[in-house]
Amino acid sequence: MSAIDELIALLDRSRVLTDTDVVGSYVHDEAEWAPYSAPLAVVRATSTDDVQRTVRWALEHRVPLVPRGAGTGLSGGANAVAGCVVVSLEKMNSVLEVNPLERIAVVQPGVVNDDLRSTVATDGLWYPPDPASSPWSTIGGNVATNAGGVCCVKYGVTRDYVIGLEVVTGTGEIVRLGRRTAKGVAGLDLAALFVGSEGTLGIVTEVTVKLRPLPDPGRTVLGYFDSIVDAGVAVRDVAARGLTPAALEIVDRICLEAVDEMTNMGLASEANVVLIGKVDEPGEAGAAAAAEMVAAFETGGATFVAETADAEEADAMMAARRLAYPAMERKGPLLTEDIVVAKEHVPEMLRRIEQISQDVGITIASVAHAGDGNLHPLMVAGRDDDDERVRAQQAFDRIIDECLKLGGTVTGEHGVGLLKMPGAARELGPEVMAMQRAVKAALDPHGIFNPGKVF
Amino acid sequence: MSAIDELIALLDRSRVLTDTDVVGSYVHDEAEWAPYSAPLAVVRATSTDDVQRTVRWALEHRVPLVPRGAGTGLSGGANAVAGCVVVSLEKMNSVLEVNPLERIAVVQPGVVNDDLRSTVATDGLWYPPDPASSPWSTIGGNVATNAGGVCCVKYGVTRDYVIGLEVVTGTGEIVRLGRRTAKGVAGLDLAALFVGSEGTLGIVTEVTVKLRPLPDPGRTVLGYFDSIVDAGVAVRDVAARGLTPAALEIVDRICLEAVDEMTNMGLASEANVVLIGKVDEPGEAGAAAAAEMVAAFETGGATFVAETADAEEADAMMAARRLAYPAMERKGPLLTEDIVVAKEHVPEMLRRIEQISQDVGITIASVAHAGDGNLHPLMVAGRDDDDERVRAQQAFDRIIDECLKLGGTVTGEHGVGLLKMPGAARELGPEVMAMQRAVKAALDPHGIFNPGKVF
Repeated sequence: MSAIDELIALLDRSRVLTDTDVVGSYVHDEAEWAPYSAPLAVVRATSTDDVQRTVRWALEHRVPLVPRGAGTGLSGGANAVAGCVVVSLEKMNSVLEVNPLERIAVVQPGVVNDDLRSTVATDGLWYPPDPASSPWSTIGGNVATNAGGVCCVKYGVTRDYVIGLEVVTGTGEIVRLGRRTAKGVAGLDLAALFVGSEGTLGIVTEVTVKLRPLPDPGRTVLGYFDSIVDAGVAVRDVAARGLTPAALEIVDRICLEAVDEMTNMGLASEANVVLIGKVDEPGEAGAAAAAEMVAAFETGGATFVAETADAEEADAMMAARRLAYPAMERKGPLLTEDIVVAKEHVPEMLRRIEQISQDVGITIASVAHAGDGNLHPLMVAGRDDDDERVRAQQAFDRIIDECLKLGGTVTGEHGVGLLKMPGAARELGPEVMAMQRAVKAALDPHGIFNPGKVF
Repeated sequence: MSAIDELIALLDRSRVLTDTDVVGSYVHDEAEWAPYSAPLAVVRATSTDDVQRTVRWALEHRVPLVPRGAGTGLSGGANAVAGCVVVSLEKMNSVLEVNPLERIAVVQPGVVNDDLRSTVATDGLWYPPDPASSPWSTIGGNVATNAGGVCCVKYGVTRDYVIGLEVVTGTGEIVRLGRRTAKGVAGLDLAALFVGSEGTLGIVTEVTVKLRPLPDPGRTVLGYFDSIVDAGVAVRDVAARGLTPAALEIVDRICLEAVDEMTNMGLASEANVVLIGKVDEPGEAGAAAAAEMVAAFETGGATFVAETADAEEADAMMAARRLAYPAMERKGPLLTEDIVVAKEHVPEMLRRIEQISQDVGITIASVAHAGDGNLHPLMVAGRDDDDERVRAQQAFDRIIDECLKLGGTVTGEHGVGLLKMPGAARELGPEVMAMQRAVKAALDPHGIFNPGKVF
């Protein structure tokens, strides 16, 4: 019996996909530039038991396992490696518990981010991390990359909400890491370590998250700018005024045009660069914060700025922000950056990106979680234009150079995956890389989990 | 030349203490029940270079190192082990940077918690974690134990604020872990792993923390209760009403009397059990929350409840809460619990503690960060009463039993140290303990950092 036949015998036949066409839709995530190879099979796990059987089988046969959520990752972290089995958690999609008194939820890893959000909203609760992929991406994938999003500028990222995990380990055990209680310091915080570990340490089969009360709907401030650097100056001034925005997002003209093409929203006729800010302090404090934000946008040289009294208009602008990435993807393979710089350096970093675009001769579109300095310059290269691809890669590398010069990080929320391996190695240095590899080897002694990624 | 003479030659003579009397004040923390042994020497490090020289010397001579902050720990984590060198970080006490625009501070590990708080307050900023030891305990020690405190029920614990560390590693390297930026996911989050690692993975020589804007002064609600279980019912009702208290603290009659003896505050004449709540939403939202909290206290059966309009009275009550532990310490060696249960189980856990007190025949005083279910029952035993010590230990163990039965954790903010090793091992189970030890061995391959603790 072949190894795969053994796996099929261990699981239900329906859970093991081997048909090349079907398997094809599981071989890579949305990082279109990252390499991938053919897997032996795809396991669609329906239970922790399925995962454990698969891990034990993989340990016996020394087969690499690549865990996968919805495949919306942007660094190639879920891309299949040669001879691997992809373990899809998409069918493990139950919300197991919502506990309003303790303000926690327990979910399977395949629960879609927006589904968790809408489920807990019925109890007046909120799961804040909101990657732009929230209609599709899963909590398990969000845990793997420590996903961020629009509201993280005020409310923090996935790690700030994950307090407990069930994991199938590198020795095939099912363990619980972390806690359910509000606090807990019993031993090393392995749950925190697993968040952002991109499937390299084990397979997460259950996630316990903290929740917050639903926030005030808040007030949205909309600013139009002639240049992205001007918008960056406004972002810096929002921080300098001591404001705590609940969102602060940049969308540039190229992205606005792409959204227009997809939706007929007609945004690009209004503005070159849009800056969307939100404050959600209740009552008078919120009104004061919105007025300060308007003033900050004016400091940046906004050509138009207004608090939108109209909730629909505010929602439409935020929807446009969320659509920027899928709209840009329609234009060709995107090479997506995910750098973070200090708030004071946001205008300068945006200026350098413009300079790189000119120098290298490649179009660079930009969206940004600007309020926390998390910039997503997007290089578009024609599908069959090798020369353009080379220049896009040059721009990508030079943006990383400049980000590191400014003391930034090469990935804020997408993860290292494959695309950011050289950048992460430069950022961390050889000693920290050695520590990372030592921890990886300690928890995955046989090297079965997502090999060739991150480290 | 002896190993210690070599160490003296490597550092300045003044930095190496060997005089038995002087060394004696560095041999244990405030966990009076935990064992300790005589160290070879104490290094009072003044720089990262001092620490690195000490670590490299320790690696060469295979001497255990016990890192130490202010020695205010309550689990024996900083207690000297036989033949070790204690590395005190108390002299590395500079605030290196406060960056209001980025809302971060960079500090040496010996900076006292309250000193950091007062320094950043001049910029309108706030470092929330506020253990009761904040006038004495250091940020390095707070990082080691992932310290909590009064305001953590709303604002989170030390891990929620630490974003970057400088560390001297188990191979004697100086490395930077984590980041300075608002977000960052480049590799495994080793900074998060080091928070709460109790000096077992390396020696922290610099800490980068996030800051928040100073909160609203808030409103304090004071409740008196006949029994601690009634106060626990009020705590549960605060959560059930969906309130987000900025503090919710229980102080029982025994602690009130101890504070009275120390301060002449005359608290015990007023109440058997005091519940101190705080809300800090601005404006009308705060007034509404305070009114809801009053109603919750009444649900618990408060004999008296009022929002204190008087800031001085509110401060005095919170000061009494902070003094409870030092006041109790005057009465004899304390065996301190640090359990956490779900909010819904707070009344039941408090009831079981009372039952244990009766069953075992030992006085158990209680203070609690009740709002997050973090209870600190305190067993007092006469200094020379062996029988009482045995019963205190029985009560300690039974409290852990009952906490685990209710799905709680054995330590919320004090750490495992020595006192909680059996409890932590029970809570985590053998598979997770094996993972913990594997990670420890990966980062401290020669076992020099705080051996015999935690794992």
